[in-house]
Amino acid sequence: MKKLINRPEDVVRESLEGLGLAWPELVRVSLEPRFVYRADAPVKGKVAVISGGGSGHEPMHGGFVGVGMLDAACPGEVFTSPTPDQMFEAARVVEGGAGVLFIVKNYSGDVMNFEMAADMLRGEGIEVESVIIDDDVAVENSLYTQGRRGVGTTVLAEKICGAAADKGYDLKRLAELCRKVNGWGRSMGMALTPCTVPTAGKPTFQLADDEMEIGIGIHGEPGRERMKLKSADEITEMLAKAVIEDLPFRAGDEVLAFVNSMGGTPDIELYVVYRKLHHLLEERGIRISRRLIGRYITSLEMQGVSITLLKLDEELKELWDHPVRTPALRWGA
Amino acid sequence: MKKLINRPEDVVRESLEGLGLAWPELVRVSLEPRFVYRADAPVKGKVAVISGGGSGHEPMHGGFVGVGMLDAACPGEVFTSPTPDQMFEAARVVEGGAGVLFIVKNYSGDVMNFEMAADMLRGEGIEVESVIIDDDVAVENSLYTQGRRGVGTTVLAEKICGAAADKGYDLKRLAELCRKVNGWGRSMGMALTPCTVPTAGKPTFQLADDEMEIGIGIHGEPGRERMKLKSADEITEMLAKAVIEDLPFRAGDEVLAFVNSMGGTPDIELYVVYRKLHHLLEERGIRISRRLIGRYITSLEMQGVSITLLKLDEELKELWDHPVRTPALRWGA
Repeated sequence: MKKLINRPEDVVRESLEGLGLAWPELVRVSLEPRFVYRADAPVKGKVAVISGGGSGHEPMHGGFVGVGMLDAACPGEVFTSPTPDQMFEAARVVEGGAGVLFIVKNYSGDVMNFEMAADMLRGEGIEVESVIIDDDVAVENSLYTQGRRGVGTTVLAEKICGAAADKGYDLKRLAELCRKVNGWGRSMGMALTPCTVPTAGKPTFQLADDEMEIGIGIHGEPGRERMKLKSADEITEMLAKAVIEDLPFRAGDEVLAFVNSMGGTPDIELYVVYRKLHHLLEERGIRISRRLIGRYITSLEMQGVSITLLKLDEELKELWDHPVRTPALRWGA
Repeated sequence: MKKLINRPEDVVRESLEGLGLAWPELVRVSLEPRFVYRADAPVKGKVAVISGGGSGHEPMHGGFVGVGMLDAACPGEVFTSPTPDQMFEAARVVEGGAGVLFIVKNYSGDVMNFEMAADMLRGEGIEVESVIIDDDVAVENSLYTQGRRGVGTTVLAEKICGAAADKGYDLKRLAELCRKVNGWGRSMGMALTPCTVPTAGKPTFQLADDEMEIGIGIHGEPGRERMKLKSADEITEMLAKAVIEDLPFRAGDEVLAFVNSMGGTPDIELYVVYRKLHHLLEERGIRISRRLIGRYITSLEMQGVSITLLKLDEELKELWDHPVRTPALRWGA
């Protein structure tokens, strides 16, 4: 296992410590229980936006804590759900009197543990709304999921809802917005190579030298099909077609296009994919007016790419453009 | 070779096309000859800041073109110097009447071709200053270099000089500033895995499963030492010690710490490295007051990390904080 780590069991803690040391003006880190939270929390009168999930998908979620995005993020061990006490304590620290929005990726462990935390918080008199993100069109039900998995749209929902909370949306309206983003976002990913969970020490699955997997999950869960390698254009077309036809996105739609590296795929390849995606959408009369290109929801060092499309209206565009200042996403601030 | 590409010989062109399609409000792309330039070029009365070099190090340099950083970037083929006609044409397009600063990484081909372009431009009556970046402390002379190689400090010089040009520095003062940044910046990198140039189709070098290389170059040039894998803390200490003792950085110094992935190393590991670097510098009384953590000067999908330290004064801090808006680096705008 070739990784820049010390003891495998210390990776998550040490990485969190590094995040806290690096960005003291933006985030604080609690180690017991583990969560990352806004340095200036609680923000009085603002709904607190909280997410979380297994580690190994960095910068999601800890890298998105800051001004205009998340108030707190609760990381589990690598590819393992966080426990309810993490979300409970995080919420108690960042809640500013206007309630809490949980943004939860649809994995059974995450859903269950966020639900337990919500119940515990309601018992303390704190209002909680929970929105499940289930945007992955690849498969119905999966290794860790009933229904569809939650992937790329999570990043977009965190940005957009973080902005809306900043602008004063109340809890009910914020939860509705989050459901709208989930309803309008669709994703699919693929892998060229597997990744290795530090404490496991060996790849989570095997792919032959001439093979790839289409529709893979962010923990290496089986996708739609394992097949021989194809060109970037062919791969982009397979992913884009599945995403476009699922919503479906139609001529005249305006979208945010999110081309995401699974971790190990470099920028030079992401832009080859983006080029083809642009042309495919143009042919269908779908206009890209916002975009996000890089590594935002990853699977450790896995090579591969995911494509997310989010339908936009004026509200979503304005919220997307709203200033954000976090370790991993920043503009206008 | 597992890559998201079409024909290997088309990767650079297609990736540039993707960059241009993705960020039309920031950059334009010329394909013949190849260069990326500011969408609003030329900016009248401002010194034009131009860099370039082999492709495969993305986002450097094309991802740094935009407001407050580069006016143009000239990409060669992967790991291959650009030709003088690229810099010549780029300069003619972006020059706004106040001359041109070339920021050149110290590789023999780059140095020679930027020099030829400078001569051609002077023949047209355009003032040019050229500053060579040679910050890599790993080795003297190398596979493609006389003297030291140019690595991470290049990114910092491009940001800082781009800001200074924006603020109205004239050409002479801007070149002096760039030499100061190069004089105050030091770097060293290491690799866990090699990378594969698309047209070569096989890794540029071999590393056994239990081996790493300390002091590696960004094209896989030999470093200081090939050795058995060590822990992240030990690796960070080796890199940091070499960098600190070279300038040397001393107690009381304020620095920018730049922890850079060679491409395939994920954020979770970068922050493990940052954590140790923070403690090592703290022990020596060196204070990190600015930082950059992520993938900024890469070697395709190579796994590994580089550490750059830049000594700061008030001028450099102010220029670092100046708004920037490029595809890959953005804040305050």
